[in-house]
Amino acid sequence: MQRRPRLMSAAILAAAFALCATAAAAAGPLPSWTEGKTKHAIVQFVKEVTARGGPHYVRPAERIAVFDNDGTLWAEQPMYVQLAFVLDRVKALAPRHPEWKEKEPFKSVLAGDVAGVAAGGEKGLLGLVAATHAGMSSEEFEKTVTEWLAAARHPRFHRPYTELVYRPMLELLAYLRANGFKTYIVSGGGIEFMRPFAEKLYGIPPEQVIGSSIKTTYEVSNGKPAIVRLPEIGFVDDKAGKPVGIHTYIGRRPIMAFGNSDGDFEMLEWTTSGPGPRFGLIVHHDDAVREWAYDRESHVGRLARGLDEAPQRGWAVASMQRDWKRVFPFEK
Amino acid sequence: MQRRPRLMSAAILAAAFALCATAAAAAGPLPSWTEGKTKHAIVQFVKEVTARGGPHYVRPAERIAVFDNDGTLWAEQPMYVQLAFVLDRVKALAPRHPEWKEKEPFKSVLAGDVAGVAAGGEKGLLGLVAATHAGMSSEEFEKTVTEWLAAARHPRFHRPYTELVYRPMLELLAYLRANGFKTYIVSGGGIEFMRPFAEKLYGIPPEQVIGSSIKTTYEVSNGKPAIVRLPEIGFVDDKAGKPVGIHTYIGRRPIMAFGNSDGDFEMLEWTTSGPGPRFGLIVHHDDAVREWAYDRESHVGRLARGLDEAPQRGWAVASMQRDWKRVFPFEK
Repeated sequence: MQRRPRLMSAAILAAAFALCATAAAAAGPLPSWTEGKTKHAIVQFVKEVTARGGPHYVRPAERIAVFDNDGTLWAEQPMYVQLAFVLDRVKALAPRHPEWKEKEPFKSVLAGDVAGVAAGGEKGLLGLVAATHAGMSSEEFEKTVTEWLAAARHPRFHRPYTELVYRPMLELLAYLRANGFKTYIVSGGGIEFMRPFAEKLYGIPPEQVIGSSIKTTYEVSNGKPAIVRLPEIGFVDDKAGKPVGIHTYIGRRPIMAFGNSDGDFEMLEWTTSGPGPRFGLIVHHDDAVREWAYDRESHVGRLARGLDEAPQRGWAVASMQRDWKRVFPFEK
Repeated sequence: MQRRPRLMSAAILAAAFALCATAAAAAGPLPSWTEGKTKHAIVQFVKEVTARGGPHYVRPAERIAVFDNDGTLWAEQPMYVQLAFVLDRVKALAPRHPEWKEKEPFKSVLAGDVAGVAAGGEKGLLGLVAATHAGMSSEEFEKTVTEWLAAARHPRFHRPYTELVYRPMLELLAYLRANGFKTYIVSGGGIEFMRPFAEKLYGIPPEQVIGSSIKTTYEVSNGKPAIVRLPEIGFVDDKAGKPVGIHTYIGRRPIMAFGNSDGDFEMLEWTTSGPGPRFGLIVHHDDAVREWAYDRESHVGRLARGLDEAPQRGWAVASMQRDWKRVFPFEK
């Protein structure tokens, strides 16, 4: 009588384990991606390049995957997160700069004319960044970014911007790393704006973040050295700048690239035109209910050539509406 | 009678294992370093930063170690290896450039006036690099470097330059990586000159090589994209440029730095002035028999301020003569 319950417990435990294993196997990787050709293409590619002895095997050192950030890893509407940061900084610093009231792009910023600022694109944004964020050390700037991110809220979702990350993409980053990939951000956004949060948010360390930058200089003041930020654009990591950034920082052509706008076109082109197995994917924002729907006519994240040429170039297009079961981690 | 030999064999085996273990423990890490305060300081530092729960523990993501290349990882006498490469390239290309006969620094190169070229320093070298190595794709340049390294021989040792690496430093790189460090090259030399051999020679992948660079651009010609090298200096990764290079590429302050000349001073200063445990080391070339003896008066690898300030800054100075049992791997 004593052994029976024990046996039953063991049997129940075994059954439970079997169920869990089955459930895990059924869910497989990328649980927030719907079963379909996009998810299948990703998983199939990863299986092929990691199959030792297979015809498409790629050694781990060459498994480099690059991701755009704005609109690919986190939301970029109604404006780039970094633009929201810049607007807030301009407002905070305005009392010390009375001349900004009459000078663009500061005038638009202070008047709340977001469209006027956004029309300048990322390059305009970088001009604002250079004008308002120079003359401090990199450590001070990092502190400013971290404090702002903790306090700021997204105007539609009323949550910290760091919660506006795409759950399917977080799963994808983790899945690729579990398969020996080194994951990089290659963004038009500021490298020093992204580095303070990329490790915590995406598991991507600062040395794997590539972005636009202003120039810096090394200065020793009273025996204390610092990297000081200068009011001068250094590198614009957008469009044809992306392959240059990849080459400069990584020195090796990636085998996978993920983007969402025409600013990612050259990165996708450079990645997928190398020899051996290659994978390119465009996130298509076509979900006005859970996120936003925009492409050809948008000032932010404009996508036209990418959509037109994706089929002939063999790039996958992930429909946010159809390919993603969930968009944000906070969705039930 | 049957068991006795078996027992004896087991005893002999156990004794042999014990001997091996003792020998390994006696040799410990860094076998080409003599027992003494320099080796002890390295090992002690690594033990402290890897002791989980200890007061000086540093998590693996922050265990960044930076190494100068010329004179720190491989020999830089009688001239930088890259300078030897440049001289050979100038000679190879000279028939197509008759004007070089009357134009410096080409004139000195073609006349075999090495001192005249060396006097220009690494910046002069970069000028030569830009003038003679632009207008080709990065892939073509990599091929040129790889072919030259396979064919060229060091004038004193009559061996490939890649054999002129320092065995104690190779052991140090491996020892640090075994302890969770990410090892970087931070060199005044050309980034695209080093990347083709750094992985094979040092186990350092291209994305962990930081160096001087000329500008590049992304071009698509007949549907084939390429990174094209421009005749314009991009970044000089020397002196105060080294902390800037570290900040740009890594975005995190290293905790260990290794150099050999005053070109490494700011890198050592930046690394060792951060909070928490820090380690700086200068390789001192004081072995005229096995390698070379030079410091304050040398055009190549000049070391004066580093020697003067090392004691007060707490930097270790490795005497090649006293701290290294062997210099090159080919020594018996």
